[in-house]
Amino acid sequence: MINVTIIGASGYAGAELVRLLANHGKCRVVHLVAKGSGGRRFEEIYPALGYLSALRGMVVEDVDGDFSPQTAAAVDDADVVFLALPHGASVPFVRACLAKGKRVIDLGADFRFRDVAVYERWYGKHDYPELCAETVYGLVEAHREQIPGQKLIANPGCYVTGATLAMLPLVKAGLVDLNTLIFDSKSGVSGAGRGLKEGSLYGECSESIKAYGVASHRHTPEIEQNLSEAAGRPVTVSFTPHLTPMNRGILTTAYAALNEAGQKADLAAVFAECYGGERFIRLLPEGKMPETKWIQGTNYVVIGFTVDRRVNRVIVCSVLDNLVKGAAGQAVQNMNLMFGFPEEEGLELMPLFP
Amino acid sequence: MINVTIIGASGYAGAELVRLLANHGKCRVVHLVAKGSGGRRFEEIYPALGYLSALRGMVVEDVDGDFSPQTAAAVDDADVVFLALPHGASVPFVRACLAKGKRVIDLGADFRFRDVAVYERWYGKHDYPELCAETVYGLVEAHREQIPGQKLIANPGCYVTGATLAMLPLVKAGLVDLNTLIFDSKSGVSGAGRGLKEGSLYGECSESIKAYGVASHRHTPEIEQNLSEAAGRPVTVSFTPHLTPMNRGILTTAYAALNEAGQKADLAAVFAECYGGERFIRLLPEGKMPETKWIQGTNYVVIGFTVDRRVNRVIVCSVLDNLVKGAAGQAVQNMNLMFGFPEEEGLELMPLFP
Amino acid sequence: MINVTIIGASGYAGAELVRLLANHGKCRVVHLVAKGSGGRRFEEIYPALGYLSALRGMVVEDVDGDFSPQTAAAVDDADVVFLALPHGASVPFVRACLAKGKRVIDLGADFRFRDVAVYERWYGKHDYPELCAETVYGLVEAHREQIPGQKLIANPGCYVTGATLAMLPLVKAGLVDLNTLIFDSKSGVSGAGRGLKEGSLYGECSESIKAYGVASHRHTPEIEQNLSEAAGRPVTVSFTPHLTPMNRGILTTAYAALNEAGQKADLAAVFAECYGGERFIRLLPEGKMPETKWIQGTNYVVIGFTVDRRVNRVIVCSVLDNLVKGAAGQAVQNMNLMFGFPEEEGLELMPLFP
Amino acid sequence: MINVTIIGASGYAGAELVRLLANHGKCRVVHLVAKGSGGRRFEEIYPALGYLSALRGMVVEDVDGDFSPQTAAAVDDADVVFLALPHGASVPFVRACLAKGKRVIDLGADFRFRDVAVYERWYGKHDYPELCAETVYGLVEAHREQIPGQKLIANPGCYVTGATLAMLPLVKAGLVDLNTLIFDSKSGVSGAGRGLKEGSLYGECSESIKAYGVASHRHTPEIEQNLSEAAGRPVTVSFTPHLTPMNRGILTTAYAALNEAGQKADLAAVFAECYGGERFIRLLPEGKMPETKWIQGTNYVVIGFTVDRRVNRVIVCSVLDNLVKGAAGQAVQNMNLMFGFPEEEGLELMPLFP
Repeated sequence: MINVTIIGASGYAGAELVRLLANHGKCRVVHLVAKGSGGRRFEEIYPALGYLSALRGMVVEDVDGDFSPQTAAAVDDADVVFLALPHGASVPFVRACLAKGKRVIDLGADFRFRDVAVYERWYGKHDYPELCAETVYGLVEAHREQIPGQKLIANPGCYVTGATLAMLPLVKAGLVDLNTLIFDSKSGVSGAGRGLKEGSLYGECSESIKAYGVASHRHTPEIEQNLSEAAGRPVTVSFTPHLTPMNRGILTTAYAALNEAGQKADLAAVFAECYGGERFIRLLPEGKMPETKWIQGTNYVVIGFTVDRRVNRVIVCSVLDNLVKGAAGQAVQNMNLMFGFPEEEGLELMPLFP
Repeated sequence: MINVTIIGASGYAGAELVRLLANHGKCRVVHLVAKGSGGRRFEEIYPALGYLSALRGMVVEDVDGDFSPQTAAAVDDADVVFLALPHGASVPFVRACLAKGKRVIDLGADFRFRDVAVYERWYGKHDYPELCAETVYGLVEAHREQIPGQKLIANPGCYVTGATLAMLPLVKAGLVDLNTLIFDSKSGVSGAGRGLKEGSLYGECSESIKAYGVASHRHTPEIEQNLSEAAGRPVTVSFTPHLTPMNRGILTTAYAALNEAGQKADLAAVFAECYGGERFIRLLPEGKMPETKWIQGTNYVVIGFTVDRRVNRVIVCSVLDNLVKGAAGQAVQNMNLMFGFPEEEGLELMPLFP
Repeated sequence: MINVTIIGASGYAGAELVRLLANHGKCRVVHLVAKGSGGRRFEEIYPALGYLSALRGMVVEDVDGDFSPQTAAAVDDADVVFLALPHGASVPFVRACLAKGKRVIDLGADFRFRDVAVYERWYGKHDYPELCAETVYGLVEAHREQIPGQKLIANPGCYVTGATLAMLPLVKAGLVDLNTLIFDSKSGVSGAGRGLKEGSLYGECSESIKAYGVASHRHTPEIEQNLSEAAGRPVTVSFTPHLTPMNRGILTTAYAALNEAGQKADLAAVFAECYGGERFIRLLPEGKMPETKWIQGTNYVVIGFTVDRRVNRVIVCSVLDNLVKGAAGQAVQNMNLMFGFPEEEGLELMPLFP
Repeated sequence: MINVTIIGASGYAGAELVRLLANHGKCRVVHLVAKGSGGRRFEEIYPALGYLSALRGMVVEDVDGDFSPQTAAAVDDADVVFLALPHGASVPFVRACLAKGKRVIDLGADFRFRDVAVYERWYGKHDYPELCAETVYGLVEAHREQIPGQKLIANPGCYVTGATLAMLPLVKAGLVDLNTLIFDSKSGVSGAGRGLKEGSLYGECSESIKAYGVASHRHTPEIEQNLSEAAGRPVTVSFTPHLTPMNRGILTTAYAALNEAGQKADLAAVFAECYGGERFIRLLPEGKMPETKWIQGTNYVVIGFTVDRRVNRVIVCSVLDNLVKGAAGQAVQNMNLMFGFPEEEGLELMPLFP
């Protein structure tokens, strides 16, 4: 039984960690920390999640911008600290946790890039650049071997997870023209967080769909980093996120021109070889495509593909729950590997359907 | 480890049983039976639920109107049989299961009424009337003591569970005018089942709300049976169900005039006394009202109330998930009590929020 | 052709006035005024409504709390001013408009109550009490004769319109027990306005329903005022609003015990006599109930009823679009009557279905 | 005042014609014909649309597979006949109408292809091939000059309209690599019609998104026909439709690699030149993207674009209401041009927002 502290517990990803860890047999949540919510009971912030006996009455602790004595205590009591903070905010906490010898799983973007220059081009100045190159990027299905025993894991972005996993096997196998990669992603509204934005109001985003951040979304370079690593050379991609009127889920429709090898290859076998043993990836037979409702509330990624022979293009669809495999679930999966727990501990969730 | 057969596995309630039992530590599903789906793998019918390794590849068996040899085998292998069938369809299965010494939990209406005449007035002729009076009605919070060891449990209706639990403590304590009971319920669309009906199409029921079955819904006499039992004398009620554009959840807003005793009573204490130790009932402080999203996917009922002193009326709101506490979850709760398992086994579910 | 100024044009009700007046043949919008949006083009605030050639490029003018020179010009140019402001904010504008001899239609609550004491009990101090008793309350179907030529109309509340119209004929005809009136209303989210509130986020209110303001909502005394007038003696009611996951629409389910006269009366005839000639009220045959989607985007109210003979109670359902008949549409209907235009001018809208 | 008959009035597109023509000043609906609904009043089939005085009480006439005497009368009384039928079903009606000298606007696919071989490859055998080559394809913004006076117009497909209009200016101007065209479209559920299909149930498609018909949807060759015409040489494309949880609207996200000319061109100017005078097309400034809610219920297409300089790709987004500009609205626009009415007659609709 290890102790967990969640810093950033008032956002949707933080709350999802609470939901998942409530049924985790190997750890218990000892501190919830959140900016601006100090002193409130967690069940006031999330009445839906206030039922767990272990949490009932738990008071959220405040966090100031930097690292306060109060937060220090929350870290001291923990074996692992989850950070669910806006980008740029993780650095002081990572520094402090590592100094105290605590393990950290950072759900933010701060340590996802090995190349600090890329981070700074898309996000702005980095305050702890020397740590970037050595941080393990916790896309479990790509880096499982590196995770056990790590001190710091950078948990991947939600869109990035779905986009990368859709195309990774084909890129790795050298079957697609790397200049033709397009990722058209459709996300539920929870991806925008619980912040008060006009665009997140029911009246604005229900019964409507729109593209946003076109050609400029910060998940683009993260997808590129993953696929460049797989390809063994620099890859650029187009990535277009869309806001879809549903709570959870990301569907990524990925397009690539098949090269000559790709046109001849048995793509189903390529996917199967890459993901065959994966606990949280389900592959559909060629021509079948997944729906986001199939993975609602779970840590699964479901992947389907079709080859359009008329134009020699492969279309791959992946679905995941942005708050689970796209955030809190993948973070728990990383924790499980870090500590040597069974990978599926706390993650054996069945989808809510309908 | 006991063996479970689900008859009627292709409907939403049957599928919800599959979802819940997937994580139940004391039983395993051995047969899935459904009319018109024989020979199909369960994951074709519910791709969302096809991931569980225990279920993968499980082939659904057909059921004819009556009791066939094939169904007989499905019953023979089981320790308990769940029936999730349209009303009127359960009788032959109940008969056969009991004859074979199997336990049955019937999610339909056939055995919910002690007084066959009431059943026949609302539903039509009953084919096994002699069993009605002795069947235990599995509203756990009202009849917990009678459930262990039973052979047949009639699982309560979804609306009925929410309506009854909202008003039971006040009726039992004699605090309300029994001629003034009104239940205005709002249900998600899954309550209408997976059948192909124009009114269940997205285009028809999204962005809309309507009342239906006004003054004629078959859950009315079931609420009356429960409250009459609590009152010790016949009670009639008004019950108005509404179709609400959401997947799951029932909110019941219950109204009653407070009698003199009720106007003086400490209602919060009355609720607490009645439900204080209940694992699946959460009481809110006076003046706080619950939302259906708080219990999405769980077996909880959350109850809040307010007294309107201007008119001496109490308004009680209860929420539950119609497929869990309103159907499959309560059925599992009944199974747990029947077999002496911990009441919460398989039901420790956190709500999906958002 | 008359000139119209809208003060409070940035909220949903203000924007709905823009939508409706865009196709009104007898008036043109000359000024849009809104707090905090001064200098922005209207199409930036509502891109969906920026297409009308008459409006394209129109710049919204700021409004300070009180009455500024800029607002004065907006009033000077107008024949009629619509106020779509939070309660309490209308008084200075009403004062100034009337002083300039302009007509005013106030969509807020400030002048809806003839009895200032009632207003002050529910809303707080009134700054222009002497005007209350003489203001005409613009529920057209109840006060049509008083509207033509008026200088100031208080436009009714959204819930109030649906609740009042549902029960008015029966109360007027003396057919119901006045101590038993209950209004259970379900409103779409647009009723909460465009303000940034956590409870209006997609993630919080989609897939969920809740009661709010139970026994304390400010529309209660307004319903009571209307029904007391109809009954000829003071009436108190229970009113429970619910937030429903849809954009528009209010369904009110109204309950009343029938008195002896009511039990014998031909209720359909009573409704028909009261509303027979009404352009915007549709009556359904006994036993049929309306759906909010039937009136989406229109000025219609559709009313159905059922008598529950078992308990001698009548259940009446009314539906309306809260932004049209519940706000902007009724305001335009009032303008039409004030100025002697055809009552349906600008309001011949077909519902969007599906 | 001309007379209109609608054959196929019970589907969503037929009902949308009713909605639009209700406020059309130059025509009146004289017959509604629908398979399997004969003898029912239209307001029973669409209670939401039964309010129009002209329609109230109108009885729908039956249509047999072929052309009956009853249908003959419905055609005889009409100046123009709208056909809103499944593909393959229009031929006998087109034949009969033309023989009687009546004008026809066919909302189905039967006469959309000039090359019968293409039709037959995607749809099956054509029963009236000789008419295909000479039928005018009613994409107004591309073929306005050919429409006046025509006897038969093939109304374009919903996805096709949005996809074609998004890319037409750039293809025509020779600015994109024609081997790189990808159309990723997201449609509301009404596009699936009112038929009873499991996939159209609220429980199945709400809170979920999926791709369907990948690399095989029948709108693909229609997009190709349009763009081939614009390019002056054969063009093939990838087209992926998605089912999105909303009632109405299609967002098409179109991708193309810019060729050298395209990289230097002023794309905004190219769009403006192509669509500058169009009544129903709105262009957004570079970098702004539209939302489907902006055009809910209207005949508008809104187009935005962004150039991704990193990868030399242009991304164009178009939105339209699939039942209006994607079906009934464009059909009315065609009728207006056919008969010399103002193009916007009956189509001056403001979007419902929110």
